[in-house]
Amino acid sequence: MKIENKFPGKDISAEDLKTKFPLVAKQNPNHKSCFDIAGVTFGGEQIPIFAGPNMVESRELIIDIAHNVKKAGGHFLRGGAFKPLTFPYRSDNYTETRERGIEWLIEARDKTGLPIITEVMEEKYIPLIAESADILQIGSRNMQNYPFLTACAKTGRPIMLKRHYGASLRDWLGAAEYILVEGNQKVILCERGVSTAHTHRSTSRFLLDLQAVPAAQEMTHLPIVVDPSHATFWRPWVTPMALAGIAAGADGMMLEVHPDPPNAAVDPLQAIDYAEFSKLIGKMNSIAKVLGRRI
Amino acid sequence: MKIENKFPGKDISAEDLKTKFPLVAKQNPNHKSCFDIAGVTFGGEQIPIFAGPNMVESRELIIDIAHNVKKAGGHFLRGGAFKPLTFPYRSDNYTETRERGIEWLIEARDKTGLPIITEVMEEKYIPLIAESADILQIGSRNMQNYPFLTACAKTGRPIMLKRHYGASLRDWLGAAEYILVEGNQKVILCERGVSTAHTHRSTSRFLLDLQAVPAAQEMTHLPIVVDPSHATFWRPWVTPMALAGIAAGADGMMLEVHPDPPNAAVDPLQAIDYAEFSKLIGKMNSIAKVLGRRI
Amino acid sequence: MKIENKFPGKDISAEDLKTKFPLVAKQNPNHKSCFDIAGVTFGGEQIPIFAGPNMVESRELIIDIAHNVKKAGGHFLRGGAFKPLTFPYRSDNYTETRERGIEWLIEARDKTGLPIITEVMEEKYIPLIAESADILQIGSRNMQNYPFLTACAKTGRPIMLKRHYGASLRDWLGAAEYILVEGNQKVILCERGVSTAHTHRSTSRFLLDLQAVPAAQEMTHLPIVVDPSHATFWRPWVTPMALAGIAAGADGMMLEVHPDPPNAAVDPLQAIDYAEFSKLIGKMNSIAKVLGRRI
Amino acid sequence: MKIENKFPGKDISAEDLKTKFPLVAKQNPNHKSCFDIAGVTFGGEQIPIFAGPNMVESRELIIDIAHNVKKAGGHFLRGGAFKPLTFPYRSDNYTETRERGIEWLIEARDKTGLPIITEVMEEKYIPLIAESADILQIGSRNMQNYPFLTACAKTGRPIMLKRHYGASLRDWLGAAEYILVEGNQKVILCERGVSTAHTHRSTSRFLLDLQAVPAAQEMTHLPIVVDPSHATFWRPWVTPMALAGIAAGADGMMLEVHPDPPNAAVDPLQAIDYAEFSKLIGKMNSIAKVLGRRI
Repeated sequence: MKIENKFPGKDISAEDLKTKFPLVAKQNPNHKSCFDIAGVTFGGEQIPIFAGPNMVESRELIIDIAHNVKKAGGHFLRGGAFKPLTFPYRSDNYTETRERGIEWLIEARDKTGLPIITEVMEEKYIPLIAESADILQIGSRNMQNYPFLTACAKTGRPIMLKRHYGASLRDWLGAAEYILVEGNQKVILCERGVSTAHTHRSTSRFLLDLQAVPAAQEMTHLPIVVDPSHATFWRPWVTPMALAGIAAGADGMMLEVHPDPPNAAVDPLQAIDYAEFSKLIGKMNSIAKVLGRRI
Repeated sequence: MKIENKFPGKDISAEDLKTKFPLVAKQNPNHKSCFDIAGVTFGGEQIPIFAGPNMVESRELIIDIAHNVKKAGGHFLRGGAFKPLTFPYRSDNYTETRERGIEWLIEARDKTGLPIITEVMEEKYIPLIAESADILQIGSRNMQNYPFLTACAKTGRPIMLKRHYGASLRDWLGAAEYILVEGNQKVILCERGVSTAHTHRSTSRFLLDLQAVPAAQEMTHLPIVVDPSHATFWRPWVTPMALAGIAAGADGMMLEVHPDPPNAAVDPLQAIDYAEFSKLIGKMNSIAKVLGRRI
Repeated sequence: MKIENKFPGKDISAEDLKTKFPLVAKQNPNHKSCFDIAGVTFGGEQIPIFAGPNMVESRELIIDIAHNVKKAGGHFLRGGAFKPLTFPYRSDNYTETRERGIEWLIEARDKTGLPIITEVMEEKYIPLIAESADILQIGSRNMQNYPFLTACAKTGRPIMLKRHYGASLRDWLGAAEYILVEGNQKVILCERGVSTAHTHRSTSRFLLDLQAVPAAQEMTHLPIVVDPSHATFWRPWVTPMALAGIAAGADGMMLEVHPDPPNAAVDPLQAIDYAEFSKLIGKMNSIAKVLGRRI
Repeated sequence: MKIENKFPGKDISAEDLKTKFPLVAKQNPNHKSCFDIAGVTFGGEQIPIFAGPNMVESRELIIDIAHNVKKAGGHFLRGGAFKPLTFPYRSDNYTETRERGIEWLIEARDKTGLPIITEVMEEKYIPLIAESADILQIGSRNMQNYPFLTACAKTGRPIMLKRHYGASLRDWLGAAEYILVEGNQKVILCERGVSTAHTHRSTSRFLLDLQAVPAAQEMTHLPIVVDPSHATFWRPWVTPMALAGIAAGADGMMLEVHPDPPNAAVDPLQAIDYAEFSKLIGKMNSIAKVLGRRI
């Protein structure tokens, strides 16, 4: 009985690293990208923190959150103005704020100095987001939308590429190669939970894959951010998994922060409030120091 | 200790059926969509067969395959002219034939009378594919590209929506609702394998989820097609899993067929040849009869 | 960057087939075990059907079921007298009937001529079950209890080895090798669902892995039985998945049958009644014929 | 269309906590077991470290390792004298040392004062291990061997219950309840990796499920240990995942330590050497302090 191994399967092969994602692949064990976005260094000693609400619900809200993220020591303000939904219908409190939301984000940046990251969901909004945001966030559901990746890459703006919850490391790094091949080198990877049999709560859908942090860092020089809010979908697990992400070696952390989480317009089960965020930053910083890094 | 169940998790709830995908949801146990595409009825007694190569490699090849698919009793010619790849680089034998490929598909249809289905990968090609193909195929990687789903839906052309290999039934039906809400009712779902721990061969990446056939049919009135070629990625398993798909109640079957599978430009491990296809059609028909259906 | 492949991982290698399970491995493509148990041939043209209740609830019940299984054309009566439970507490209607249950199974066999299969759960009951039952069933939870496998094997009695829902094909065949190495060659494998992210209903825990049928048949000469009742945990899916199992090439089928499924003591969501069982046997037989086999 | 939710599925329900594992379940948010084993406190401020080789290869080796584990600050010496294997055949360097191995462990304890933990694999060895070891380790493959759990529980000795790699949190806590119901309250849970589609290397089989740490701590008062060595099966990932485990709130850590990992008799890809272990302890301690704990 012959068991063929010639064709690549689930995992990354040495051949993949050389021919399929030569730009994404590490060239040597110490090869690690280090670049600056809006004055914040990625891939260096500092571990940037992205924080903000799931949705940019209102001008007041996002400005208030920006001040509190800044005060607590966060580096980027995150918030969705355009939101993909599993279903085409939106409840009243789930209305996208779209162009207005982007304006409010910009105003929040102006008021606080915090650079902003927001999701770009479709090609026609790429110019708007590219000129407004400091980082274009490509969501899980668009991770394998290759023409879209190329279009985003061509703006030359920094990009955060979230992993699809069903994507292998090979799929994810292959998608990143689509961006790098356009000459865009400021690419940040973001792990946000994968589909498995084991999510532990009936309200949760994902499992945070922290093993992906050292695994990705073994294969690629790109920085890896962790998003425990979307992964766990459960507030009490956000702090432990955020701390675990830092300890695992994450190069950044993305967190949902809201002044009144149970009344957040979207995903009220997962956001943390200002007080918890502030405490968490302190703890993340202490853990980062153990690894010779800092928040 | 309270365990909350208020927010929807991994599975479909009765609430989802009513408010999140009212158009996709079955209205009663006997509710099943039945519609005609290019003279072939979906959702009825007949089980349409889609067959052809992974890639439309050349004019001669696709015409030869079309004649053989027709002769064996297939109903639709499938073939990719535009192909998404996990990596941005293509080997020499993996060059897309693009617009020429579409022309060759049309010529093959003209010569054989077989209607054609082909993947549409990006928005700018929607008009070309919509006017050329009888069914627009939306690939797994675009399943959650909602603006793209909407744009395809608006052409009014029939659509096959492949399930992403990491998508739940809930994600998949939610994506279909995006198409139906545009007034496009000729939507075919296609199961093509999911990511799990258990693929049994190091060269395989997916597990064909046949439990999704009765599960989807319990929730929705839309026809469900099964694609065992991409799911198994392994020729010897294609025939048993195709037969199993028919027996599970599939409303259609999609198969990769090539005159010389080991030398196919793409995915040479999974295509079956004309002789095997012809025999398989006969067996599928016999099994279909057991269920009161036919190929 | 080096990616090592020297140590075996998730899947079966050619080396495994030669050195790790030489007795389980196929020696050539046509190598298939064929043996007789209680007058029923396994691995041949006929596809034996195992049917009966989850639990041997009472003498009357099991005798009634035996008559009906026999009448419908089943070959083995199944029923649990000893039952493993996820939790140590049993509700009133979940009481094991233990030694009495075994006596009732024997009486049912005497009255109908149907040979019996029942689960053996712990070492101290091996002698009792070995002298009473025609086949010892080893449940999923004991699949990797190697000393127990050895002890069961040493009885010389035929054994059905159910796959653990988290076990790979490699784990499963390795467990079977533990039985064969004791000189016991009448080993039947049984697939009964695996843990994945995709079970489609909140009440279900498993996905029936029919891809395991051709996969196992590619690696081993042992017969493969499919159990769609435990896998789907949902009555409406049992018939389609049983038919799919036969079409996929299963060498046997195990089904939960109960005169009044909604009032079954255990797992009332999954059993089918006599009428459905009888109809299902007819359809399975028709599908088997398509493959040159029969029930 | 009705979607039933009455029967429990994959996840833990409030009903389960009350009726299925009342002894394992937390009675209030601050309920946490705290007990002493061989002078080491579990569930308190200190986080005990278990370290040692996969196999007790020789007397010299285990004594040398014991001295080094002690020196570095470990609390328990671990080592397998009896080892379950996926296949029944053992290579020469994989011979179990069995009773002699237990004697050597005892000698290592005598020489260093380190209490010992070792796996008990079958019922007949329970008395031997119970009188020799300070903690009985029940391996993944025996997690659902309920009569064995009961027999181990009845010795009254402390027990570490490893999670099966396919088991849900519900399965795992249900198994623990089998031990507690016998009046044995010194039960430690150990997460050691689960089967998923995403292991990132072809040589790896599991994904360390750190989300299980806060999830288990939400449901149960029992201490949770993490084993990153077996989970990752890859040395370079052990340190990051061990640190992540501590940060996630683990109540203990189990590590494979060997003087010459590439030449370890078993699992040479995963053990760390003395120097790395010693450095790791230091870092784990610093992280523990951030959480108000210590090694």
